[in-house]
Amino acid sequence: MPLTADQMAEVAEAAASRTPTARPVAAALEPMLFQPIPVLDHGFVRVIDYMGDDAAVVQSARVSYGRGTKAANEDRGLIRYLMRHRHSTPFEMCEIKYHIKLPIFIARQWIRHRTANVNEYSARYSVMDREFYIPAPDKLAAQSSMNRQGRGDTLQGEEAARVLQLLRDDATRCYDHYIDMLNEDEQGAPLDAERSGLARELARMNLTLNTYTQWYWKIDLHNLLHFLSLRADAHAQYEIRVYAQAMLETVKAWVPLSYEAFADYRMGAVTMSAQMMGIVKRMLAGEDVQQPTSGLSKREWRELMEAIGRA
Amino acid sequence: MPLTADQMAEVAEAAASRTPTARPVAAALEPMLFQPIPVLDHGFVRVIDYMGDDAAVVQSARVSYGRGTKAANEDRGLIRYLMRHRHSTPFEMCEIKYHIKLPIFIARQWIRHRTANVNEYSARYSVMDREFYIPAPDKLAAQSSMNRQGRGDTLQGEEAARVLQLLRDDATRCYDHYIDMLNEDEQGAPLDAERSGLARELARMNLTLNTYTQWYWKIDLHNLLHFLSLRADAHAQYEIRVYAQAMLETVKAWVPLSYEAFADYRMGAVTMSAQMMGIVKRMLAGEDVQQPTSGLSKREWRELMEAIGRA
Amino acid sequence: MPLTADQMAEVAEAAASRTPTARPVAAALEPMLFQPIPVLDHGFVRVIDYMGDDAAVVQSARVSYGRGTKAANEDRGLIRYLMRHRHSTPFEMCEIKYHIKLPIFIARQWIRHRTANVNEYSARYSVMDREFYIPAPDKLAAQSSMNRQGRGDTLQGEEAARVLQLLRDDATRCYDHYIDMLNEDEQGAPLDAERSGLARELARMNLTLNTYTQWYWKIDLHNLLHFLSLRADAHAQYEIRVYAQAMLETVKAWVPLSYEAFADYRMGAVTMSAQMMGIVKRMLAGEDVQQPTSGLSKREWRELMEAIGRA
Amino acid sequence: MPLTADQMAEVAEAAASRTPTARPVAAALEPMLFQPIPVLDHGFVRVIDYMGDDAAVVQSARVSYGRGTKAANEDRGLIRYLMRHRHSTPFEMCEIKYHIKLPIFIARQWIRHRTANVNEYSARYSVMDREFYIPAPDKLAAQSSMNRQGRGDTLQGEEAARVLQLLRDDATRCYDHYIDMLNEDEQGAPLDAERSGLARELARMNLTLNTYTQWYWKIDLHNLLHFLSLRADAHAQYEIRVYAQAMLETVKAWVPLSYEAFADYRMGAVTMSAQMMGIVKRMLAGEDVQQPTSGLSKREWRELMEAIGRA
Repeated sequence: MPLTADQMAEVAEAAASRTPTARPVAAALEPMLFQPIPVLDHGFVRVIDYMGDDAAVVQSARVSYGRGTKAANEDRGLIRYLMRHRHSTPFEMCEIKYHIKLPIFIARQWIRHRTANVNEYSARYSVMDREFYIPAPDKLAAQSSMNRQGRGDTLQGEEAARVLQLLRDDATRCYDHYIDMLNEDEQGAPLDAERSGLARELARMNLTLNTYTQWYWKIDLHNLLHFLSLRADAHAQYEIRVYAQAMLETVKAWVPLSYEAFADYRMGAVTMSAQMMGIVKRMLAGEDVQQPTSGLSKREWRELMEAIGRA
Repeated sequence: MPLTADQMAEVAEAAASRTPTARPVAAALEPMLFQPIPVLDHGFVRVIDYMGDDAAVVQSARVSYGRGTKAANEDRGLIRYLMRHRHSTPFEMCEIKYHIKLPIFIARQWIRHRTANVNEYSARYSVMDREFYIPAPDKLAAQSSMNRQGRGDTLQGEEAARVLQLLRDDATRCYDHYIDMLNEDEQGAPLDAERSGLARELARMNLTLNTYTQWYWKIDLHNLLHFLSLRADAHAQYEIRVYAQAMLETVKAWVPLSYEAFADYRMGAVTMSAQMMGIVKRMLAGEDVQQPTSGLSKREWRELMEAIGRA
Repeated sequence: MPLTADQMAEVAEAAASRTPTARPVAAALEPMLFQPIPVLDHGFVRVIDYMGDDAAVVQSARVSYGRGTKAANEDRGLIRYLMRHRHSTPFEMCEIKYHIKLPIFIARQWIRHRTANVNEYSARYSVMDREFYIPAPDKLAAQSSMNRQGRGDTLQGEEAARVLQLLRDDATRCYDHYIDMLNEDEQGAPLDAERSGLARELARMNLTLNTYTQWYWKIDLHNLLHFLSLRADAHAQYEIRVYAQAMLETVKAWVPLSYEAFADYRMGAVTMSAQMMGIVKRMLAGEDVQQPTSGLSKREWRELMEAIGRA
Repeated sequence: MPLTADQMAEVAEAAASRTPTARPVAAALEPMLFQPIPVLDHGFVRVIDYMGDDAAVVQSARVSYGRGTKAANEDRGLIRYLMRHRHSTPFEMCEIKYHIKLPIFIARQWIRHRTANVNEYSARYSVMDREFYIPAPDKLAAQSSMNRQGRGDTLQGEEAARVLQLLRDDATRCYDHYIDMLNEDEQGAPLDAERSGLARELARMNLTLNTYTQWYWKIDLHNLLHFLSLRADAHAQYEIRVYAQAMLETVKAWVPLSYEAFADYRMGAVTMSAQMMGIVKRMLAGEDVQQPTSGLSKREWRELMEAIGRA
């Protein structure tokens, strides 16, 4: 993730400038602005801009003329009520913009969330950086034997070493050939004057899916929280979860009351079907309910046992 | 549109506060923040918050680390290029939030633009204000005889007076009965302790469509410009066009380069079909083309003549 | 809601025609096509077209070449799994189109769901029908004293009679004046040749919010189920809930497996926060938890007691 | 693109079945249903389902009870009017669903259109096919020296041969190693019982971007036409343009009137700025306008000359 000296200078300059504004300012987020938070081996997340704060949620929920109540406690109560009852539109009134560097195979998963604005670095127009994601040894998981889209134990010893070697070699060789076919270097300067280069829009197809790309990504708070609830979840793939976790820290600094309500009512929340609630009621009434008489499938029964801590 | 003394105090307080921020600041827009711009007889538009500026458009088009070029001229050229070639995603990277007071029948037209975030004042929850739109006498247009959804001459004399009287009387009577059915006053205080009031969610149905409502409305720059290109256009209904015109002023202060490119390439632009372009080419080659030999329908021919200033 | 003889003939003709297609056909929905299901006093819902069925959900979840499994039971299991775990994209692969007649104040609530396609009857272009929603006497609810946006007891006797009279008189008078100002009758024929008529786009503002409008409304199955989960819920306003209930019947005929999964996992489902689950676990372990030691606010405690049937 | 015998049997079975429906049927599209149209070396597009036809556009524009006018000519005129004046909502009332096989680097460009529903084949869950896009020799373009995101001449001789060899070798080697790391074959059967396999969600990162993926993609007619106007355009990358061209044929069979209006008013259309129109008017009045006195930049002047056929 090391930025170049030029990039670091640009970041430092932006972070150091201060201009007065009449807009709401999120004091705890300001020092984080523009600073890359490292993620994976070469990736990062950094906040570029934001609009609104917790008071803006309250203000738009009330369609009021000023900035919410004087009593911070009333604001907290309202925000918790809105979150608990899924009144989502007031949370849409805050917006945040990130600059993110991430491996292409993760970018492909990420982009499925269609409610954000995106500008991605163009490999039709520019040369891609020589950076690939290679998992840390303790993240080199085997296929789960239980869950078709999950991970099992970590690969060990020779097997792990071999996989890492293959990943590294293939990504490097493909990138070298990409540069060779382009006939230009990473800064876009021509290499061999005697021959043409393959069009950038074609040469890029030789890169492997762990090559890093980057984009500007802008989203409102409601849709961001939805994204984070899915991607910071234990079922999400590790490589996207670490981005979601880094972003959670920025949300906490930006809108602490909304973050707290989200943590309480969404992150740890469980949705119980009518049948599941019926069984809980029978259990609370003292009945010893077992799966065969529960009316639930084995799979659902297992999910219920997990939820009530009996798994 | 007169705000109450309390509301004016809240606006003044918000406008007077200044806090330093590391975010981009649009200097010319800051003094306009929170200030209601009057529209129609009781309506207004006011900017509540914004994110980004012209440099943010450039920055995201380039997916760059800093704030665009040092050379302002290059930024202008790029923004004009993006606008001309309808590269819309960089303009999605700026966002603005308005508080708007407008008649319900205009709100119904407005809400058809689905790409914005909206929080409307709730008539299920609160009592509506006693404010109705009554057109100024010179805006009291007759139905156009040419265009089924257009306006013709202005109504005059007795006929105009009669219409104004009907609009005023009906709106007032319906509002009085609304309050009566609610059995509470405009501040929500109970009136007659002896009887119940009709539920607010029902009583509201007695109001006329010129009653004013209000909402917070947030949108990105690309979609705002699309909205404005339709609603500031001469074919838009006058009562929504005046809102669009007020908003154009805020856009001009916020992102002057994007505004200029929009004015040049979108507001006065004409889309010519392949057939129309073929006729223009024949005319430029000196041919005297007439409708019957043009291949265009009479209606399209009229549209072409207008576009080339021969109507 | 009575359609004219012409409209009924058009509906009958469309319903009677049969053409062979290679597309999936939802046998139980076909006989319902085009038939208006009456809602409220003059409204209706009718299915105009649909795309896909339960097998299409399975097919797109598997990105398969044919129409899902031979074993209907496997399809059911997969659909239930997708619904339970909120894998929503396969449900987006089915689409339905309705023609709906509804009061304007309900249309305003409805249109807040932005994920549908809509074409509304244009009052700028055409004359509105003389039809207003007047609640049935047993639906004439007083304002709730507990809940600012809820209903309480039903108004009785003279008070009820008076409200109904006001609603009826005001809507009728406003509509009469609308026609008068337009100077044309309900079919758009001119009335008094001596005078102009007010532009339709202006005259409409004199109508009351219980006037009926109509639209074509098209939405995918996932977003429809989200809409229905909110609007068929006991907390939704009665006047929109009856539309949602009518639509649930069409969903049941169209995609019975998806409907069943929705009924089981969404309609009766409860979302429990981490804190609430913690209390349930303590209760199941035999502890006698009370609100003061629960860590929940009184409001949340009440919500929990309701969920576990102790309210 | 050869489907397996099983897949071909499934396609044939679906295509051969016929069931009566009361819905609108697009007669010319029915025989195309389910049939893969080959694109590139291993890709295809096939129509899986559709909703509505030209008459449905008319019907929703009019919010009518029946299926549009009896006079086909009036329908044509209305559809052309709607297209010319960009009244887009009636075109949103038709929907189509495709199954598409395409290289990942093209899928990444394609997915930027956010208004469609998508289900992609999951490489977290399943093993990817051994299929890569290798350009035909006459499509092996050099980088344009004029346009940073365009193509120039075709590579020749040894240079071309070398590029093709690199593309083929790298894709094949990466895929072989992918299978090796997975420790399962293309059908998901285990290979070496002695060792674990890397999790599918990780192994996929070793694939090159020309590997084929596939998805179900569903979109309304308005947004499809917007997609096609961008992607069937001469400026679009060849590898996505061929998909757009194949889809245009399906649109022509599905909604011939809408297709014709689209071809006339959108595909060959030119948007002229107010300044450009001013120059055209001066030229039509006989003035010999040159770039220096035109007020246009050199680039815009060149664009204008192209539009009026003087380039």
